Amino acid sequence: MSSQTGKILKVSVFGQSHSECIGAVIDGIPAGEAVDTDKILTFMKRRSPGNNSWSTGRKEADIPRIVSGVVDGVTCGSPITVIIENKDTRSSDYDDLKYIPRPSHSDYPAFIKYGEAHDIRGGGHFSGRLTAPLCFAGALCMQILERMGINIGAHISSVGSVDDTAFDNVDLNIDELKSAAKKQFPAIDDTAADKMIELIENAREKGDSVGGTVECGVLGVPAGIGEPMFDGIENRLAAALFGIPAVKGIEFGMGFESGRLYGSENNDGYYFDGEKVKTFTNNSGGIAGGISTGMPLIFRLAFKPTPSIALPQRSVDLRTMKNTELIIHGRHDPCIVPRAVPCVEAVTAITLLDLIYEDKKYGHC
Amino acid sequence: MSSQTGKILKVSVFGQSHSECIGAVIDGIPAGEAVDTDKILTFMKRRSPGNNSWSTGRKEADIPRIVSGVVDGVTCGSPITVIIENKDTRSSDYDDLKYIPRPSHSDYPAFIKYGEAHDIRGGGHFSGRLTAPLCFAGALCMQILERMGINIGAHISSVGSVDDTAFDNVDLNIDELKSAAKKQFPAIDDTAADKMIELIENAREKGDSVGGTVECGVLGVPAGIGEPMFDGIENRLAAALFGIPAVKGIEFGMGFESGRLYGSENNDGYYFDGEKVKTFTNNSGGIAGGISTGMPLIFRLAFKPTPSIALPQRSVDLRTMKNTELIIHGRHDPCIVPRAVPCVEAVTAITLLDLIYEDKKYGHC
Amino acid sequence: MSSQTGKILKVSVFGQSHSECIGAVIDGIPAGEAVDTDKILTFMKRRSPGNNSWSTGRKEADIPRIVSGVVDGVTCGSPITVIIENKDTRSSDYDDLKYIPRPSHSDYPAFIKYGEAHDIRGGGHFSGRLTAPLCFAGALCMQILERMGINIGAHISSVGSVDDTAFDNVDLNIDELKSAAKKQFPAIDDTAADKMIELIENAREKGDSVGGTVECGVLGVPAGIGEPMFDGIENRLAAALFGIPAVKGIEFGMGFESGRLYGSENNDGYYFDGEKVKTFTNNSGGIAGGISTGMPLIFRLAFKPTPSIALPQRSVDLRTMKNTELIIHGRHDPCIVPRAVPCVEAVTAITLLDLIYEDKKYGHC
Amino acid sequence: MSSQTGKILKVSVFGQSHSECIGAVIDGIPAGEAVDTDKILTFMKRRSPGNNSWSTGRKEADIPRIVSGVVDGVTCGSPITVIIENKDTRSSDYDDLKYIPRPSHSDYPAFIKYGEAHDIRGGGHFSGRLTAPLCFAGALCMQILERMGINIGAHISSVGSVDDTAFDNVDLNIDELKSAAKKQFPAIDDTAADKMIELIENAREKGDSVGGTVECGVLGVPAGIGEPMFDGIENRLAAALFGIPAVKGIEFGMGFESGRLYGSENNDGYYFDGEKVKTFTNNSGGIAGGISTGMPLIFRLAFKPTPSIALPQRSVDLRTMKNTELIIHGRHDPCIVPRAVPCVEAVTAITLLDLIYEDKKYGHC
Repeated sequence: MSSQTGKILKVSVFGQSHSECIGAVIDGIPAGEAVDTDKILTFMKRRSPGNNSWSTGRKEADIPRIVSGVVDGVTCGSPITVIIENKDTRSSDYDDLKYIPRPSHSDYPAFIKYGEAHDIRGGGHFSGRLTAPLCFAGALCMQILERMGINIGAHISSVGSVDDTAFDNVDLNIDELKSAAKKQFPAIDDTAADKMIELIENAREKGDSVGGTVECGVLGVPAGIGEPMFDGIENRLAAALFGIPAVKGIEFGMGFESGRLYGSENNDGYYFDGEKVKTFTNNSGGIAGGISTGMPLIFRLAFKPTPSIALPQRSVDLRTMKNTELIIHGRHDPCIVPRAVPCVEAVTAITLLDLIYEDKKYGHC
Repeated sequence: MSSQTGKILKVSVFGQSHSECIGAVIDGIPAGEAVDTDKILTFMKRRSPGNNSWSTGRKEADIPRIVSGVVDGVTCGSPITVIIENKDTRSSDYDDLKYIPRPSHSDYPAFIKYGEAHDIRGGGHFSGRLTAPLCFAGALCMQILERMGINIGAHISSVGSVDDTAFDNVDLNIDELKSAAKKQFPAIDDTAADKMIELIENAREKGDSVGGTVECGVLGVPAGIGEPMFDGIENRLAAALFGIPAVKGIEFGMGFESGRLYGSENNDGYYFDGEKVKTFTNNSGGIAGGISTGMPLIFRLAFKPTPSIALPQRSVDLRTMKNTELIIHGRHDPCIVPRAVPCVEAVTAITLLDLIYEDKKYGHC
Repeated sequence: MSSQTGKILKVSVFGQSHSECIGAVIDGIPAGEAVDTDKILTFMKRRSPGNNSWSTGRKEADIPRIVSGVVDGVTCGSPITVIIENKDTRSSDYDDLKYIPRPSHSDYPAFIKYGEAHDIRGGGHFSGRLTAPLCFAGALCMQILERMGINIGAHISSVGSVDDTAFDNVDLNIDELKSAAKKQFPAIDDTAADKMIELIENAREKGDSVGGTVECGVLGVPAGIGEPMFDGIENRLAAALFGIPAVKGIEFGMGFESGRLYGSENNDGYYFDGEKVKTFTNNSGGIAGGISTGMPLIFRLAFKPTPSIALPQRSVDLRTMKNTELIIHGRHDPCIVPRAVPCVEAVTAITLLDLIYEDKKYGHC
Repeated sequence: MSSQTGKILKVSVFGQSHSECIGAVIDGIPAGEAVDTDKILTFMKRRSPGNNSWSTGRKEADIPRIVSGVVDGVTCGSPITVIIENKDTRSSDYDDLKYIPRPSHSDYPAFIKYGEAHDIRGGGHFSGRLTAPLCFAGALCMQILERMGINIGAHISSVGSVDDTAFDNVDLNIDELKSAAKKQFPAIDDTAADKMIELIENAREKGDSVGGTVECGVLGVPAGIGEPMFDGIENRLAAALFGIPAVKGIEFGMGFESGRLYGSENNDGYYFDGEKVKTFTNNSGGIAGGISTGMPLIFRLAFKPTPSIALPQRSVDLRTMKNTELIIHGRHDPCIVPRAVPCVEAVTAITLLDLIYEDKKYGHC
């Protein structure tokens, strides 16, 4: 079992890169929620490969078809299913890969797990393409969260050695939160963005790829959301976000930096701002004991460089059991990070809405 | 719902810092597994506060009492329950804290979630004390894993700004893996250890605390373990490990560093070592596509400094709704990281054994 | 959350009677299982309404389209998704029903649960039509079970007051098990079948409907399958089989009759048949303590009469809050039991395969 | 995995008949619920063997010790753990049974599943004794349900061929619902009770046992509770109630009888009783489409006769692989049904409270 996230709100993702369709079943959204499909399409477009230097050449219209659960633009309470057809597939590109695994890709471990029957075409079920239905589900959840006054925004915080401005983790407002989302290249600082784009183009020209990080913020989460121990916000977000291909790390608030600090530096003192309890600093990233404090949620994700590069690499031939050199053909993103930004927002939305539904028995939302 | 981890092998943790008992129910271990209780006690002692400068003054014998599931030293197939009595409790230390929350502790969000009924004494269910039954469960799982040829070891990789030697992520052997576990202060490099101890003592003397990081390695995991998308090794380990109090980040292999690299630098090329497929480097930390590659698993966790410090801090009084100053009394670890090392090993063992049981239908182990 | 069954092998059913599609996601079947689609179609045809007197007039081709998880006729290890288009829908038949609930239908409780947004057309997500994707999933699981030597068969054991021959619960063989499945009207005894058909035709002519029971048997389940307490075979089969619309009761072995017996009558004594342990009688229906004994599994299900009848009925108008008379138009089965027989087999197959995968860690299959 | 029921409210049962303790972890009850332990003890006494002719001679004080989750008589939001010590154990009674399985007991299938390591003493984890912690959990849930206006009551509806009066499924009131619970022998009709007791005594004198049925009713469940398809009230109650040892069947409302009826007889017509929608009849047992209708819930369970009887029985010796005769010593109930009545109420309470918590996102309770 595998491709499902959530406890009260369950999202099951299906499909392979080159199967007839990819899609998702979203089970647990109450009846009566309006579904703005235009807004969903706009969101999904942020993930689609564009006519730019940092995306794959594969073109998919990615028109989601809602085949159940929504009637006249409103959820009816039964599972919502979305289907996206796969059209621009070139399976012949993958003929040799089944036996000559691409380094740092799922090819080899998946071959061991699934054997000859594994669908390696386009990365199969492990393809970044599977984030399209995730973005559909996330865009839907974001609409429901927004009606609760909860907003999510992410941006590229670094590509290679180039850093973007970080979110103000204490006074983050919705304009700052959403500023990157509107841009074709989702970084806050335009100068940094230009440098990042240059870095990516250089990598692409060399047949190489480059990694980066994404920072995500959430405004409006009331204090008290999250369950103790293994179902805290950190546990659940981490469990879901590692479902986005290429994620190799996650940190909340100060994260790894907090390991270098003293308690007197790291602790977030409380004060009353009118009737609302706030903290002077927000090194916790809005989460203490796994539960929201009412301050902005802030976390960062590390993305490794796209493993598919055009340069020759060392691999093995699993048929002959000999070492060999591998040249990967096909169309790949020289940097996955720009397109990962909406994916991070989407998975965050799904996970938070699930935790909010779970909290309903306490009645905080 | 909350305090349970696992899918096939489920560990449910119960208790509060000052309740009568803490403990765990371990459900899903097949019948016939020998239980070496001496070895479990030795393991649990690594977590217990010692007569040293870096642990809390609270003394608990922490004798686990197995009340079900084991007959004549062998698992019988029904749920295994362990109980640990709480004895050295000083609840009066916590009288004021219910309404004057400790910064960066669970106090405030838990008060919002649970209201007046929240058990704040000693941190209640959010206390690090709850890792004692987790260590019991983990020690048991480690015995079973060892019989499968799988070994787990962790060490302090940093305290404040002092770094320990890192594991050799390619040629890690069992001696290196287990070297820190045998020491009272679990770092590999003794010079680094001395500096870390000095740093912790300085923090303690100032009434402060300090954070750090832990690196964990696993040897012997065959290729093919882990489920796709949301149930990969990274997802499941992250979901469980954030259950250890004070964890604020996790990264696998190169982790955040891989965000700074080019694909040509980060990719792990394959070669045949005899009949076994290996990689020249192991920047993936032994995991690709969420599934094990057969190389050593390597990951790191960030621990924030213990939030309970003796220095005066800014807080609020939730009764009067006024700002106030807080002085925390009671006994606390100036650095939680040394005692966290066995906890990381324990949670890793529980999670991997669960994934291995789940993989049984494919037959790799 | 709702429309999902299984723990290791999860089947998620989606769609409403009049949504664009209905379907299912089947997650957890290992890679490498051959999928015989002709055999699946033959199985699904047993559920389809036919040109006979006991089925609804609604005609649906019910061609399942496998859009993921199967490549070249073999499972690839990722979720298998099947889609069935809804074509012959007459939603106008349901215009008034939203506010004038049909007696003993889901209409009223679903209206309370989902409000105005509930999709009542054709019964929405509560329609018997949703058993089509269940039959697809079940037919696939049956193929895998058959390769393990496990066979499932069911028959109508009664319609109204007419009883069919019961399975021989001790010496049941595969011919007897499968004899009804091959017939258009799936009863073992042809004379009883004729009487049942007559009874159903009479009910239809009067605008009425009639209930019945189904008996199901399973051959080849080895001893030792099933988990204790809440995950025994009985628990899991019951939990899943009540998912078939109109089921109001389930009993295993002697079932309710065993409540009238003495222990000396009901107990199944053991003996050796060569090297195999068998029981002289099989009043337990092949299950003791929730776990299979190695004898045939035998259980029966009660189906209430189709609630949609043409006769005038008493109902309420939820808009005017007045009592009213209801005349139901539309096309309905005068007896659901014949078409329920393959559904029972399908859900049994899904549930047993899930339990067998769960048992893999013990190694009995 | 096994001994856990529930989705939002999870109850994990642990222990064996002769282990040190039995108990349960109850996870998911919100903070702030008052716990009346006297009332729980009174409830649990109904399950305890008494000084009468129909119970086992084994005497257990069954004093539950709440070791976590409750502070000063109020739930604190973290898991509630109860422990009951096993004292009056006579393990020597079970020396031979490991290899000579008792007919219709779990002995043989559990031996196959768990092998030599299976704890057969007193039936191990399969013992009816494990219903003691279930009754604790159920009694606690009943208190919470009663504060919501929901009441549960059960009674013996038959022993052997002697029937009790059935509940009035339309006009059931709380006095009728609770009338049997107050009696030592929980039947409604005293004349029937006397006959049942006589029947049981006769069975006991002959070294035999006898089966029976239990009817359970629930008042005050609002319409709209229950999730569709596999998580309806019927699915979830069945899944949980088959966890009580010796249950071999369950039926809701008219149950198996509805299979003999016409739709015009079985359908429950609606009318307005003031502002409340009611049905003239309640053949559905208060559930349609898996969801509550607002009418009383009514269901019945079949209990097989206690398999442990004193009469000689045919069995096998698994060591010698020869047929043999078995004489069971030890102390056993000649009829389990009287003590099963509170168990049915308890499991019903746990299951309904879980479904009500799950429904919180819709807001009906």
